[in-house]
Amino acid sequence: MDDDVPLILTLDDSGSSTSAPLDDLEREELPNENGGSYDVVNDASSPAAGECCTQQSSARHNWEMNYQEAAIYLQEGENNDKFFTHPKNAKALAAYLFAHNHLFYLMELSTALLLLLLSLCEAPAVPMLRLGIFVHATLELFALIVVVFELSMKMRWLGFQTFIRHKRTMVKTCVLFVQFIEAIVVLVRQTSHVRITRALRCIFLVDCRYCGAVRRNLRQIFQSLPPFIDILLLLLFFMVIFAILGFYLFSPNHSDPYFNTLENSLVNLFVLLTTSNFPDVMMPSYARNPWSCVFFIVYLSIELYFIMNLLLAVVFDTFNDIEKRKFKSLLLHKRMAIQHAYRLLVTKQRPSGISFKHFEGLLRFYKPRMCARERYLTFKALNQSNTPLVSLKDFYNFYEVVGLKWKAKRNREHWFDDLPRTAFLIFKGINILVKSRVFQYTMYTVVAVNGIWILVETFMLQGGNFFSRNVPWSYIVFLTIYGVELLLKTTGLGPVEYLSSGWNLFDFSVTLFAFLGLMALAFNMEPFYFIVVLRPLQLLRLFKLKKRYRNVLDTMFELFPRMASLGLTLLIFYYCFAIVGMEFFAGVVYPNCCNTSTVADSYRWVNHTVGNRTVVEEGYYYLNNFDNILNSFVTLFELTVVNDWYIIMEGVTSQTTHWSRLYFMIFYIVTMVVMTIIVAFILDAFVFRMNYTRKNQDSEEDNGIVLEKEISKEEVIGIIELYKRTSGATETAQLQKIVLQMDKYGQMSAVFLGRRSRTKSDLSMKMYEEEIQEWYEEHSRKEESQTPLQEPASASSSSLKPLSLRQRSQTVI
Amino acid sequence: MDDDVPLILTLDDSGSSTSAPLDDLEREELPNENGGSYDVVNDASSPAAGECCTQQSSARHNWEMNYQEAAIYLQEGENNDKFFTHPKNAKALAAYLFAHNHLFYLMELSTALLLLLLSLCEAPAVPMLRLGIFVHATLELFALIVVVFELSMKMRWLGFQTFIRHKRTMVKTCVLFVQFIEAIVVLVRQTSHVRITRALRCIFLVDCRYCGAVRRNLRQIFQSLPPFIDILLLLLFFMVIFAILGFYLFSPNHSDPYFNTLENSLVNLFVLLTTSNFPDVMMPSYARNPWSCVFFIVYLSIELYFIMNLLLAVVFDTFNDIEKRKFKSLLLHKRMAIQHAYRLLVTKQRPSGISFKHFEGLLRFYKPRMCARERYLTFKALNQSNTPLVSLKDFYNFYEVVGLKWKAKRNREHWFDDLPRTAFLIFKGINILVKSRVFQYTMYTVVAVNGIWILVETFMLQGGNFFSRNVPWSYIVFLTIYGVELLLKTTGLGPVEYLSSGWNLFDFSVTLFAFLGLMALAFNMEPFYFIVVLRPLQLLRLFKLKKRYRNVLDTMFELFPRMASLGLTLLIFYYCFAIVGMEFFAGVVYPNCCNTSTVADSYRWVNHTVGNRTVVEEGYYYLNNFDNILNSFVTLFELTVVNDWYIIMEGVTSQTTHWSRLYFMIFYIVTMVVMTIIVAFILDAFVFRMNYTRKNQDSEEDNGIVLEKEISKEEVIGIIELYKRTSGATETAQLQKIVLQMDKYGQMSAVFLGRRSRTKSDLSMKMYEEEIQEWYEEHSRKEESQTPLQEPASASSSSLKPLSLRQRSQTVI
Repeated sequence: MDDDVPLILTLDDSGSSTSAPLDDLEREELPNENGGSYDVVNDASSPAAGECCTQQSSARHNWEMNYQEAAIYLQEGENNDKFFTHPKNAKALAAYLFAHNHLFYLMELSTALLLLLLSLCEAPAVPMLRLGIFVHATLELFALIVVVFELSMKMRWLGFQTFIRHKRTMVKTCVLFVQFIEAIVVLVRQTSHVRITRALRCIFLVDCRYCGAVRRNLRQIFQSLPPFIDILLLLLFFMVIFAILGFYLFSPNHSDPYFNTLENSLVNLFVLLTTSNFPDVMMPSYARNPWSCVFFIVYLSIELYFIMNLLLAVVFDTFNDIEKRKFKSLLLHKRMAIQHAYRLLVTKQRPSGISFKHFEGLLRFYKPRMCARERYLTFKALNQSNTPLVSLKDFYNFYEVVGLKWKAKRNREHWFDDLPRTAFLIFKGINILVKSRVFQYTMYTVVAVNGIWILVETFMLQGGNFFSRNVPWSYIVFLTIYGVELLLKTTGLGPVEYLSSGWNLFDFSVTLFAFLGLMALAFNMEPFYFIVVLRPLQLLRLFKLKKRYRNVLDTMFELFPRMASLGLTLLIFYYCFAIVGMEFFAGVVYPNCCNTSTVADSYRWVNHTVGNRTVVEEGYYYLNNFDNILNSFVTLFELTVVNDWYIIMEGVTSQTTHWSRLYFMIFYIVTMVVMTIIVAFILDAFVFRMNYTRKNQDSEEDNGIVLEKEISKEEVIGIIELYKRTSGATETAQLQKIVLQMDKYGQMSAVFLGRRSRTKSDLSMKMYEEEIQEWYEEHSRKEESQTPLQEPASASSSSLKPLSLRQRSQTVI
Repeated sequence: MDDDVPLILTLDDSGSSTSAPLDDLEREELPNENGGSYDVVNDASSPAAGECCTQQSSARHNWEMNYQEAAIYLQEGENNDKFFTHPKNAKALAAYLFAHNHLFYLMELSTALLLLLLSLCEAPAVPMLRLGIFVHATLELFALIVVVFELSMKMRWLGFQTFIRHKRTMVKTCVLFVQFIEAIVVLVRQTSHVRITRALRCIFLVDCRYCGAVRRNLRQIFQSLPPFIDILLLLLFFMVIFAILGFYLFSPNHSDPYFNTLENSLVNLFVLLTTSNFPDVMMPSYARNPWSCVFFIVYLSIELYFIMNLLLAVVFDTFNDIEKRKFKSLLLHKRMAIQHAYRLLVTKQRPSGISFKHFEGLLRFYKPRMCARERYLTFKALNQSNTPLVSLKDFYNFYEVVGLKWKAKRNREHWFDDLPRTAFLIFKGINILVKSRVFQYTMYTVVAVNGIWILVETFMLQGGNFFSRNVPWSYIVFLTIYGVELLLKTTGLGPVEYLSSGWNLFDFSVTLFAFLGLMALAFNMEPFYFIVVLRPLQLLRLFKLKKRYRNVLDTMFELFPRMASLGLTLLIFYYCFAIVGMEFFAGVVYPNCCNTSTVADSYRWVNHTVGNRTVVEEGYYYLNNFDNILNSFVTLFELTVVNDWYIIMEGVTSQTTHWSRLYFMIFYIVTMVVMTIIVAFILDAFVFRMNYTRKNQDSEEDNGIVLEKEISKEEVIGIIELYKRTSGATETAQLQKIVLQMDKYGQMSAVFLGRRSRTKSDLSMKMYEEEIQEWYEEHSRKEESQTPLQEPASASSSSLKPLSLRQRSQTVI
């Protein structure tokens, strides 16, 4: 068993010299006094002190532990978990494994969601969902206890020391504590007090494993804050100066209600910054003296058109910078993780690489659901040289390769190649037809005609009962054409190839929806009627024609996850503000309130009779209230859109104190930050993408990342042998199928294709190609300078290979 | 006179072989069949056919012509005039010189302004400026005749062929023709007809020499249009789909006036895109069914938050790209100009460089107001080698060097160094005090206290007579402090050094203004009162404290010219729309109009009695009209700000036809384009600047570009000799003064400093350093490939030196 002794053992019953190199090397990142290893085999004698003196089972056990720790390192690298949260001993490992699986994550998520959703049922509840205080307080207590359980697991895994030092966890604990007490108080008093702290509940959601993107967004927002605040101060400074100026200039005019006090002057200029009261705020002074418009024009030019854009520029610039730094640190973190994992996988005897056996062991822990074939293909894809070992340099590509989905490269071009000759010819004809330009352009024309048809048809209907009981014939004609197209394409290309294209999927679903609309029409089901209206969406297909649109739409799809996480981040802010708003302003506005304010008209609801007709004069703004969380969300969205937000603000202010304005102004500034970040994000993403396209104009057709690997029959048989020795029949069975298939077609080897979609990280890799090399060098230089005490002679370790050699010599001595 | 035969002669009585190389080389750019030279010396015999056979006067005459043409080339390079407009013969040259001086430019500008300002007095005139039809039509005719004169000069200079091919000039001619006829028609009929063509008058302004920046902006806007329109179509497409959807969903609700027809649905969604009618358009359906808000949220998220930002991203990207390409083409154009000029200045005998004599001759034409000392310094600054000739490689720096302002480097550190000892010590003390940090921070504190004081003081005054007859004592105290500071700084630093800093200038003018305010208070002059309010501006000094603000404010000042030209561009669009608006909508809205529309309230003007008080209910919107050009401008600004613009639109629409909406919608889209460009410009400028700062963090203190040159006494005497031989006493006198000064201080040489402020072009030069070399190489390669017929052997001409050698050998043969 010469080659089966790991270079580093994760065993750690004594501070043995075996694990010392890792220990010394990693003391910086691992605040682990025992050397970052698990002391599971307490009963065994120190197995690595000598050579070949350990029993085989113990050796295998050691390896298993190493595989697991390496897999954990790689996971940490992938998830950007810092290494100081790495589990340190067997107990911690058990807790780590318990807390790191989808079941646990789902529990976390659902508890957080439950807590958030509770606000639907609490005090100013949505009428339909109102629950008794006893019920919702008990639910809350239950959820909080689950959170306590989660936290205790985390503590077990991290250890008390690390737990205390982990900021986010500590904040969560404090919030939990407060929430717990409040929930008990509510239960005891049987009545809700002012619970603004409920706004903090979102922390539980933010801390969820699945909400990593939200955390990143929040971090980015906070990092962009300092420059943002700088410019904001400039903005406010000019606002104050103009407020004083405006007060002096316009307060002598008594018919001007906007500048009669300094406070009004300030508030109105703040609102003017959002343009929300624009011509109105100018009108009284403009009516008196036309030249007073200069004041407003200068103010808006400076504040709105200059400084606000400056704000965007500064945030955009910071954002750009942060994105790059984030990419860099992620990349280096992954590299570190790979180094850690590598060191755990090489053997003492052959420290220059990882053999398939150990690689396979790693993957068993890292990706349990991967099948044997895929494991071997991944190994082959990593292995650039023709040696049986994967070197560290090759292993650095681990994350790029492990995501590939492997498929046997088919020899058949079409799905119908195996059919009899006549059928083959028919399908081949359909295939050629479907792929022809004529067919495509005909379809585009049909879609365009359909679009115009719908427009004209809708224009003809002037109100009234347009949903006649009869299905319009045009609808049937177009739907038939689409149906035929769908059928032809499916048969011509084969269902799998047809649906693998996003655009075809879109066509398919729109046609399906239109068909459902037809069904709805036929069966007179009212609620389904509106599906008819989705028909025009089919026109989006026309945009396929132009390259810029394809680019834009592709980028849109790529952006979608990130946009969604930004939306979620915004929702979290909404939630906080909604809770605060509900606590202070619930039930404050109602029809015909706010008569003392200047916006009373918007809150009016009068039912008066003119002649013999009842005229309802409705201002509707009383609907924009904070009476329950759903209403609050809609109100906050209206505030985000900004137009006429001062009506809502003034309405609430007139019913409460004028300090309420602070709430609205702070909300405006917060949404401004988030919105600016969103704009900066979209700008950045698109500019990046377009630069990328410009740089790689040759490789225009972009089908993601594809790798091709060939496996010979001997190799497969070799793996089967290996598996037979170690594990069960399931894995060998699949491999044997491959051998059988090779035999059937008389091939000596099979070709497999690995595919995955291109991520932003891939694009960045290509964009920063040159800089990445610099980063790596700089990083390894820094690493060396951090470990100068050990061995200054080994200073040339740009890759880790010489380092592991050195370790070996040390362990052998 | 061996070295006084020019390599190339601008003489051109015959198609002589002398000018042939230039001719062939430049046929691409110079559509000049005669070789781009002036045939002034028709009477002289072909002077360059032999060697040394020409008379001296003729040779000098030749040189003078060469100097002038070279200067013209350099001017064309600087102004980015294409070389095909280069004057071709003596007549053209005369016209060129006539049309290229500030007097002519001013005439051009004032004519254009007169034509534009006429709209103040024409038909819907500003009441105070109304003129009789006869008067303004005569004025117009006069201005148009001046334009005809200008154009005829241009035709003389360009020649008929080039004139016809120059697009801008042709458009101008057509517009002129139309305007002329219309002016005559108005004069004959003695009444104005619908003259929308007046909107075209801005072409005269755009074509002015001084409005080059506006032309560049317009070009940039037009270049950004294609991608803009693409995304706009996407925007409109979604709008149409949502309009149809909205119509189907909400038209059954009869209390919803926004979606009752497809047209209304479309218009309201267009307005919703600007958020201008936001919560209102949602309210009727929201009141009916709370879930209908989803429609609006989805619409706004897609259109406003996604596609609109996409628009910005695409324009920003295009803008970025265009800026770089513009910089590149400008750079190459300048290089070409320098090459052209160089070839005219080298002699046959020494073709490897320009001697000072010829360089001086060039500068006499290029910068007539430069003095002899400056000319020599410029020459020295260009001359990198120590030879008496400036090579082409050195000459390429011409534009960077020629803008430097030269000053003798002073030996004295302070202005008071020459004063007697006691005075020196006092001033030295003041100097140290003024430069100390303590003093600076004390002043900042004073300013801050003053700011807070003003705020509190203003807050205390709640309306009423705040401009009391007594000057407030706080005002006097602070002003005294500022006065003392000003005095100390002026004496400590010396007035010149004090005022050379922009911030000090600002301090000075604010203090001066505040003093004027005090005077106004003291003498009870009402109109001067508002100056008091300028005091808070002093607070801007506080922003000096932080680096980011200094950066931002510096960039602001750098951007200012460009911003102003963008503003002017916007004004030109305003002018066009104002004319069209006035022709169609003048007098259309008035108090209590528009009673048939939904916005009647905003146009109300009622004077009714409640109890015994007269209450005036004013909607004021009737003030936003197109009754004269000033009102139109204000109305258009309100439309630009976008908020509540639909009230103006609906008001006008209800009084005219619903086609009027097109005017407002087109205006919105046009301002959207211009505004997007402005945002892109600010973004680009700031991001560029910040990248620059990041790249050059070491050279943070940025005092423009400084060059130091030493001249020895012998050199000066040498130049004096040269001048004595050629020109008058004025130039030698100044040089002799330098010699005298050197003698006085016993120096053998004097050091001069050349200074100029850093321009965007300098920054770009540094940013694109590497790429610039590539551009040059690519360019010279292209040039070669365009002239392969001549001599394929000379293919290695990255600089033009070998080329000129070749030319020489050709001419000698």
